[in-house]
Amino acid sequence: MTVEKTVLARDLSHLFSDEACRRKPSPIKTTMAYFQDPSVVFLGAGMPPSDIFPLRSISVEAPKPPFTNGLALCEDTIVASLAKEHQDLTFDQDIPLARALQYGNSRGQKELLSFLKEHTKLFHNIPYQDWDIITTTGSTQSWDASLRIFCNKGDTVLLEEYTYSSSVEAAEAQGLNCIPMAMDQEGIRPDRLEDLLANWTTYHPGIPMPKLLYTIPTGQNPTGSTMSDSRKPHIYHLAQKYDMIIIEDEPYYFLQMDAYLPENERDPDANAENVSHASFMRSLCRSFLELDTEGRVVRLDSVSKTFAPGCRLGWIVGSKQLLDTYWNLHEVSIQSTCGFAQSILSGILNRWGQDGYISWLKGLRQQYTTKRNWCLDNCSKFLPSQVVTVPRVSAGMFFMILIDAQKHPDFQTTFKGDVKLLEPYIYQKCVSAGVLVACGSWFKVNGPDSSKLVQCDEESKTLIFRGTYASVPPEAMVKGLQLLGNELRKEFKLE
Amino acid sequence: MTVEKTVLARDLSHLFSDEACRRKPSPIKTTMAYFQDPSVVFLGAGMPPSDIFPLRSISVEAPKPPFTNGLALCEDTIVASLAKEHQDLTFDQDIPLARALQYGNSRGQKELLSFLKEHTKLFHNIPYQDWDIITTTGSTQSWDASLRIFCNKGDTVLLEEYTYSSSVEAAEAQGLNCIPMAMDQEGIRPDRLEDLLANWTTYHPGIPMPKLLYTIPTGQNPTGSTMSDSRKPHIYHLAQKYDMIIIEDEPYYFLQMDAYLPENERDPDANAENVSHASFMRSLCRSFLELDTEGRVVRLDSVSKTFAPGCRLGWIVGSKQLLDTYWNLHEVSIQSTCGFAQSILSGILNRWGQDGYISWLKGLRQQYTTKRNWCLDNCSKFLPSQVVTVPRVSAGMFFMILIDAQKHPDFQTTFKGDVKLLEPYIYQKCVSAGVLVACGSWFKVNGPDSSKLVQCDEESKTLIFRGTYASVPPEAMVKGLQLLGNELRKEFKLE
Repeated sequence: MTVEKTVLARDLSHLFSDEACRRKPSPIKTTMAYFQDPSVVFLGAGMPPSDIFPLRSISVEAPKPPFTNGLALCEDTIVASLAKEHQDLTFDQDIPLARALQYGNSRGQKELLSFLKEHTKLFHNIPYQDWDIITTTGSTQSWDASLRIFCNKGDTVLLEEYTYSSSVEAAEAQGLNCIPMAMDQEGIRPDRLEDLLANWTTYHPGIPMPKLLYTIPTGQNPTGSTMSDSRKPHIYHLAQKYDMIIIEDEPYYFLQMDAYLPENERDPDANAENVSHASFMRSLCRSFLELDTEGRVVRLDSVSKTFAPGCRLGWIVGSKQLLDTYWNLHEVSIQSTCGFAQSILSGILNRWGQDGYISWLKGLRQQYTTKRNWCLDNCSKFLPSQVVTVPRVSAGMFFMILIDAQKHPDFQTTFKGDVKLLEPYIYQKCVSAGVLVACGSWFKVNGPDSSKLVQCDEESKTLIFRGTYASVPPEAMVKGLQLLGNELRKEFKLE
Repeated sequence: MTVEKTVLARDLSHLFSDEACRRKPSPIKTTMAYFQDPSVVFLGAGMPPSDIFPLRSISVEAPKPPFTNGLALCEDTIVASLAKEHQDLTFDQDIPLARALQYGNSRGQKELLSFLKEHTKLFHNIPYQDWDIITTTGSTQSWDASLRIFCNKGDTVLLEEYTYSSSVEAAEAQGLNCIPMAMDQEGIRPDRLEDLLANWTTYHPGIPMPKLLYTIPTGQNPTGSTMSDSRKPHIYHLAQKYDMIIIEDEPYYFLQMDAYLPENERDPDANAENVSHASFMRSLCRSFLELDTEGRVVRLDSVSKTFAPGCRLGWIVGSKQLLDTYWNLHEVSIQSTCGFAQSILSGILNRWGQDGYISWLKGLRQQYTTKRNWCLDNCSKFLPSQVVTVPRVSAGMFFMILIDAQKHPDFQTTFKGDVKLLEPYIYQKCVSAGVLVACGSWFKVNGPDSSKLVQCDEESKTLIFRGTYASVPPEAMVKGLQLLGNELRKEFKLE
């Protein structure tokens, strides 16, 4: 008889915020043990009668797997008819609407959770056993909840030097210190992070050591960088050494692409859709979850980029202990993810099956590869290479336009050698010329004023703009990059 | 020419929390001005392409107004076919799914907002002009957001002496002082509230004056009480005098019923459905909004009780200034209400029209009147009137079972004259006998330990339990009340 070794998550409750610690179990929740008990007449909970929910059924038309000819071309359809009552279900794993739309488990409906848990197992090999998942109303809310759960006012979080601006805004509004981590096109630099943490009081005197390390490892927003797997053990080790939680925000995880090759080097016969499921799965970056022997990684997942953002449906993967704390917060805030979103997503996903969903994700990869290729091909064509560099992005929705500010004729004079002065000028010039790209400074984590020494490169002479290829039609992309190229040529006097 | 007098809300920004004040407008949001601008190629925002959202259409079957023969009997059906693209809409006011499911306005989709705003106008005559609405993911989240927006740790909120336990839990976890307001079957007692505020430092030494007054005016949870309209001006005046925001949480507003009459006094020919829309609307309690000349009332509305709780869709009515602050918070937390919920609700409501929705609400009134009557009729039949009083509730989902603890033979001995000791004993006895009602103490706001004098009646010798009739089938209600009556007779030695 083989006995499997049980590896359990560590107790990390010492990292909880005062708010999370003050949250007590509610006595009324204890009544739910009797809710479905046939021996007890339940006059306990205030639930409206589901027989008068004014909905009889919902029917959803969705594309049908396999998606071997591209997502847009797929003409086949499945129709998911979602019934109100259990006895009318046309598909066993559907959530009856009467339950999905009733008050219920803030964790999520079991039919959806079981699909997502299986999906998680297929993609990530988590080394401890008591991990779990909980649904959220999307990763923005997952991050807000994470801050409430771990941080008190005055606490510190680490974020990539450039990051999603809403993540910084949420943390700063809560009175937290946001400290940037140096990064490059392979993500956070572990050597610089080690230095930062080892010499913390030199860099950030008077600021507490960080409790959270927030990262968008794959197709990072705004840089488009993807953290190389080889850096992850070092970073995880630092999280252990300095007792931090890693919040791994992975909305772009399934927007990983084939490596970029210039048009003339590309194999015209290569077709990502001929790749097997197994080699597609092997090609993806590894999650921090796979290194997590202690349960200190909280992964934020979402269907915003694989289905649609308006679903407002995400989920968190982490240790049961940590997720129970999110659950307690959700019960007094969002209560649960929308029942329509849960039924509809569960209806489609369970009909597709894990294989069908993987086929969809492979199709997404091909779609984004094509978009990214078109974008970078046209960057080469239209942007002046004398002053512009566009890194070869391999995941996500964004590309960076790096411009050598020192080559601008008025940089030292009118703009006093300061990219912060040149940036809004160039931004406005481009908008007036008819193309809008986002300013790099909008995504910059500046750190508190008290930080004497700043580890990240403040003296950079590189102008940074963020573009996206995600939802830009091909002809608009050509036009936009042409306009941008022309404007930069004019401004940098390259004509 | 008549010039209308313009009454605008007061600037109440001095009441915002530090967190709300720290929240700065995001520069990236300024780009949205160019999002639909045909003269600008927009490479600014990271939106996934809606053509590959894996949904072609959603079709929803709902009952069809008018609902003159009761909600359950209505057999007629409308089918709302919700198209993905604007050009495929079958109904002008539908939200195209491609927009509903995209990133978008955190305030809510315009088709839904315009219905809800019109609905608000029909039911409430708001005396100032710059009021607005914003969608939320339900009133629990609206309350959580309200606390984040107005309160710093250590601040004070007033709540009814008995109230929804999650509302207290949310506030206490945030480190706020929850102070009870004395109440009776007509809601908050303005005389006692005036005394409390005038003598604040005597009652609650060392505790800051309250910033928020939280009330569930109609069909209050757990007491079932409804605040009489005549009390509201006094309470509003106190809110003005002491510079408080009134948070009016009204999930049960449309569960107002005809007054209870015992079975033998009821007119068998009376039929609530014959009442005109106008007299139905006149019969409803007035909102604090109607007294609000300054914009210091924040009303929390929700479809949880009129449609279904799992929609996770609510909305807030208040001054534009206050709502903009909620908007800023939503953009870094929930982002927006679920797009499925918005499309489906908007699809049904706009097809029904305002008249159709009012017909539905009248049907709800009749449904709940029937349920409440059945419950109270059977309370009279089965509960021992020697020890039990059941107030005649006229709104909401709950009824209170008030028991004279002093009539329990062991009250002074085993239970030391303390209802807090008798309550869990009686609760467990009832559960063992096969009927579960919730303990009053679970909903009690106790106030901080430092409060020397407690205004509310701590010496009460009344045992309180909360029951619900909302989703209890008629035969289960009879059985539950029989069991409860028998158990109380046994315990109180009335056999």
